[in-house]
Amino acid sequence: MPSNDAFDYEEVIDITPSRDIKNLVKSMENISFGGRKFGEAYYILKEMLDQGAACKKFLGLAGAIVPGGLRKIVIELMRKGAVDVIVSTGANITHDLMLSMNGKQLRLPSSRIDDIEIREKGYFRVHDVISPISDFEKLERGLSRLVSPIEEGTYASYELLTKIGTEMNQDSIVGMAASKNIPIIIPALTDSILGVQIWPFIQQGKIAIDPYRDLKFLVDMQFDLKSKGEKSGALILGGGVPKNFIFQSASVADKPLDYLVQIVADQPEFGGSSGATPDEAKSWGKIGERANTSTINCDFTIALPILASALLT
Amino acid sequence: MPSNDAFDYEEVIDITPSRDIKNLVKSMENISFGGRKFGEAYYILKEMLDQGAACKKFLGLAGAIVPGGLRKIVIELMRKGAVDVIVSTGANITHDLMLSMNGKQLRLPSSRIDDIEIREKGYFRVHDVISPISDFEKLERGLSRLVSPIEEGTYASYELLTKIGTEMNQDSIVGMAASKNIPIIIPALTDSILGVQIWPFIQQGKIAIDPYRDLKFLVDMQFDLKSKGEKSGALILGGGVPKNFIFQSASVADKPLDYLVQIVADQPEFGGSSGATPDEAKSWGKIGERANTSTINCDFTIALPILASALLT
Amino acid sequence: MPSNDAFDYEEVIDITPSRDIKNLVKSMENISFGGRKFGEAYYILKEMLDQGAACKKFLGLAGAIVPGGLRKIVIELMRKGAVDVIVSTGANITHDLMLSMNGKQLRLPSSRIDDIEIREKGYFRVHDVISPISDFEKLERGLSRLVSPIEEGTYASYELLTKIGTEMNQDSIVGMAASKNIPIIIPALTDSILGVQIWPFIQQGKIAIDPYRDLKFLVDMQFDLKSKGEKSGALILGGGVPKNFIFQSASVADKPLDYLVQIVADQPEFGGSSGATPDEAKSWGKIGERANTSTINCDFTIALPILASALLT
Amino acid sequence: MPSNDAFDYEEVIDITPSRDIKNLVKSMENISFGGRKFGEAYYILKEMLDQGAACKKFLGLAGAIVPGGLRKIVIELMRKGAVDVIVSTGANITHDLMLSMNGKQLRLPSSRIDDIEIREKGYFRVHDVISPISDFEKLERGLSRLVSPIEEGTYASYELLTKIGTEMNQDSIVGMAASKNIPIIIPALTDSILGVQIWPFIQQGKIAIDPYRDLKFLVDMQFDLKSKGEKSGALILGGGVPKNFIFQSASVADKPLDYLVQIVADQPEFGGSSGATPDEAKSWGKIGERANTSTINCDFTIALPILASALLT
Repeated sequence: MPSNDAFDYEEVIDITPSRDIKNLVKSMENISFGGRKFGEAYYILKEMLDQGAACKKFLGLAGAIVPGGLRKIVIELMRKGAVDVIVSTGANITHDLMLSMNGKQLRLPSSRIDDIEIREKGYFRVHDVISPISDFEKLERGLSRLVSPIEEGTYASYELLTKIGTEMNQDSIVGMAASKNIPIIIPALTDSILGVQIWPFIQQGKIAIDPYRDLKFLVDMQFDLKSKGEKSGALILGGGVPKNFIFQSASVADKPLDYLVQIVADQPEFGGSSGATPDEAKSWGKIGERANTSTINCDFTIALPILASALLT
Repeated sequence: MPSNDAFDYEEVIDITPSRDIKNLVKSMENISFGGRKFGEAYYILKEMLDQGAACKKFLGLAGAIVPGGLRKIVIELMRKGAVDVIVSTGANITHDLMLSMNGKQLRLPSSRIDDIEIREKGYFRVHDVISPISDFEKLERGLSRLVSPIEEGTYASYELLTKIGTEMNQDSIVGMAASKNIPIIIPALTDSILGVQIWPFIQQGKIAIDPYRDLKFLVDMQFDLKSKGEKSGALILGGGVPKNFIFQSASVADKPLDYLVQIVADQPEFGGSSGATPDEAKSWGKIGERANTSTINCDFTIALPILASALLT
Repeated sequence: MPSNDAFDYEEVIDITPSRDIKNLVKSMENISFGGRKFGEAYYILKEMLDQGAACKKFLGLAGAIVPGGLRKIVIELMRKGAVDVIVSTGANITHDLMLSMNGKQLRLPSSRIDDIEIREKGYFRVHDVISPISDFEKLERGLSRLVSPIEEGTYASYELLTKIGTEMNQDSIVGMAASKNIPIIIPALTDSILGVQIWPFIQQGKIAIDPYRDLKFLVDMQFDLKSKGEKSGALILGGGVPKNFIFQSASVADKPLDYLVQIVADQPEFGGSSGATPDEAKSWGKIGERANTSTINCDFTIALPILASALLT
Repeated sequence: MPSNDAFDYEEVIDITPSRDIKNLVKSMENISFGGRKFGEAYYILKEMLDQGAACKKFLGLAGAIVPGGLRKIVIELMRKGAVDVIVSTGANITHDLMLSMNGKQLRLPSSRIDDIEIREKGYFRVHDVISPISDFEKLERGLSRLVSPIEEGTYASYELLTKIGTEMNQDSIVGMAASKNIPIIIPALTDSILGVQIWPFIQQGKIAIDPYRDLKFLVDMQFDLKSKGEKSGALILGGGVPKNFIFQSASVADKPLDYLVQIVADQPEFGGSSGATPDEAKSWGKIGERANTSTINCDFTIALPILASALLT
């Protein structure tokens, strides 16, 4: 006959409402399902943050984080020391730069509007956000002003963005990154409007972009962490190329991550990299066998503001 | 040439971290995607709450809300006047009663354990929660004690639960409901362990359960709201039978809901009722043409604790 | 140093195009991810079918299967002996009856139409299908004609549907079920338009519906299977109450299912019953320890026509 | 009073089982939800195919298509003229090359195995597929052999893959592409094992990879299509960088796609590019206003084998 004392796990502790977000998020560790993963993620990110320079903190940005309205959250994470390296899609940095150049993001009301009408009126859409198509011209002019003074040469994406960022103020991701010496790597730069808009400078032979410099930079960083015996962890939003690029560098250098929080909407069942579990990553040596990990299966525009507020305030 | 002043929608306002959950959730109304829906949901629920008795507030409970660790959140919503009527799956009320009868819910560590081993050791599993199988016997004994004194007769599910709840204290959903005169309707009572465990009383001819009494009760309530010109709104967790049963009563009485917040993980694309949009419900007359609605596509163990804390504190 | 002969699993065999659907689906067993689950599901359903009366075959219908255009697929599964018992939402049987009474289901073009306009023009919507609201009156008249002759008494839902179905022809689910002696159980009958429309007969005291008769019928069937040592299996579409009601009867009778194919769009991560894995069901004794199972995480309007064609042709 | 003749849309025509996959898939156009999208996708791909050289056909490969077992399906699409240009993640081409160099993909049985054990035994995992870690050495040796003879110079990714592919036979994607003059573009080459393994050749100064050559190639192709007034269409698997890179080239050249079929598991609600609707793409000028499009929200290991079989046989 089965004994009910066979397992001595902790009990689920019902959550109670709290006005203090830090207390609330901490208490979610003791509930179930996604809520528990959410609470666990807080403690992982807190442990990473508390170690300061002894833990290298990667941030992967895929999905429409800036149109999503999370730009200042990312900036605050950087300001407060929760980010050492960013790997991003080109799109997020494109939108960050456009906003810095007086671009606009308007909230489409829930009543759906025809996309052909949106285009005819001079806008483009990202789900429930529209921006003027003319913002691309603003970006073009702004980039021209920022890239023109840069000395000729071959750059990694992060080097170019550091050059650009030093001319910007800290209310942009690129500007804050430059001021904090946080490299921003865009592995697929040509797959973005930013990449397209710096193309003329490349065609003129003024600058060249070498993605292998980014690869080398990140892999060297991992070897350096390994040689120093320092820890590393990643906060992954949305998966995509940034997730894989961070993981790959850890695997190449045989310096698996010690911490991982991923906020993704993809399921593991479909086999793709974005939704792949931390356990799967362990089989590749991307994540350490005893790494502390949490996967939050959630829209990051819901999860990140809460989690970042609990972490930073 | 397109004019960029063609639309004068509000701008996306980046969210900033805040320790005060109410401020944080409010500010999410101004971001995008699911985060915006989340902020809008707060304002809808707040408007429902502020109207007090002038707005009938329905709560639909489908999915493993009690195993999820949200039992006290539901109880607080009831205590603070945010709920007038509950429509639930039988499973949630089963788990609520089991906990009241000294049942246990243990947190399975993330390292997966074999389900056959779980069963052999005397437990059953709900995702990352396990409970002793012997809790069913506790429930059986507890129900026997609670149901035995009930006078013979035919009951709606809500009438039976009111009888049971008056003998319980307010730290259970059923007990709090009884103390606050909040009916709990279980349209598919036989589809639950609770339904199975009261079966002996039914076979003995002691009590009978008539689901049409529940149907009549809810439809009459809608007609009453209609005749008085009062408002109504629903907070739907998980969809399922509870969502449809609430909506159906509104449709039958031609008293469409004025407010709807639904926290569901289902997508509309698959055609099912749980994921169906508020707009689709308008075509049925379940939701009013000008109803204020928000669909949060999220795990409710993440969304509800935050939303309820913002609302109640 | 690791040996690569450590695992001797079968190799992935790339699928090749085939015009013959049976060959194609069979070959999917050898690929990966959802495709593999799909191929495995074929073999499970085939094994169930091949055993004929020696394996009791349950079909669970949740989600908009009839509006989805799968009514004839369900009918063919019944005609060919792939179904012994149906457990359904009320909505699917409502739509089946409406179609039999000259109801219409129209394909909404992909260009979205306003739901308020849909309602104003006299239709209601199920995702991309609309039907005339007047179909409800056709259903009312048709049910009046079919239910009126039924002798007074208390019925299980399946008994009532058998009475109704004997007056219908085999191009409906209800009619085919009656002709094949396939009981159709609707555990939450009051949660449907069908349930609402037979309400007048109940209020007149002509008939009564006792859901515990359905419960007893199904549990007795399980005990009978157990005593005879016969096998059982289920094809679950969409989860919901039908899934749980079938599983619960197996658990109550301690006669766990030997086979399970579930086509669901829900994920296990959110903790709900619809998306719960077969392994979780093993911990409850709903599914046998050595049961042959497959979960297809897919829209059933894609998966079922293909799977049923491979099985039945 | 509403007239039921207000809409004269086509009726939903129930699907019936068919052994002939072409007939079956065609008939799905007349059902609902995802099934309808599936049937519509067939007709779109058929129309693209029937136009031969008058319609440029793009194929976007993101997600684990080769580990998924769809490699031969992709090869057959190429052989039969359904593909003119491939844009892929590096991972898919990495796996394609590894298989050509005697790599193995083994089917992990559904009973889960510990990932640390998988790693210790010398394998890595992609959901339910494992491969020997030693396959990377095979790839390294194979690439060394294939890349060494290539003349020094700067290459686009597609140029390098053409060089490699001409030395391979047609049972690989890369080999078939070379034989059919189908360029394979990998915009984020450094984000893959393939990219890492050719790194030594780059460090030695033997070859250089310039992603702007890929960008120029694709954008020039779009301008060429535009000047000739030819049509274009895309089959997108999984979204990601390949989807955006194809769309971006259309947008930059102001030559929006005339046809789009996307098989993705992402939802539009989360705001990301992979799940974005064809309508959203119209607002960017990536897709034509009157383009014929279908989004299949499905695991591509289920949808693609069926769809390709219907198309090619």
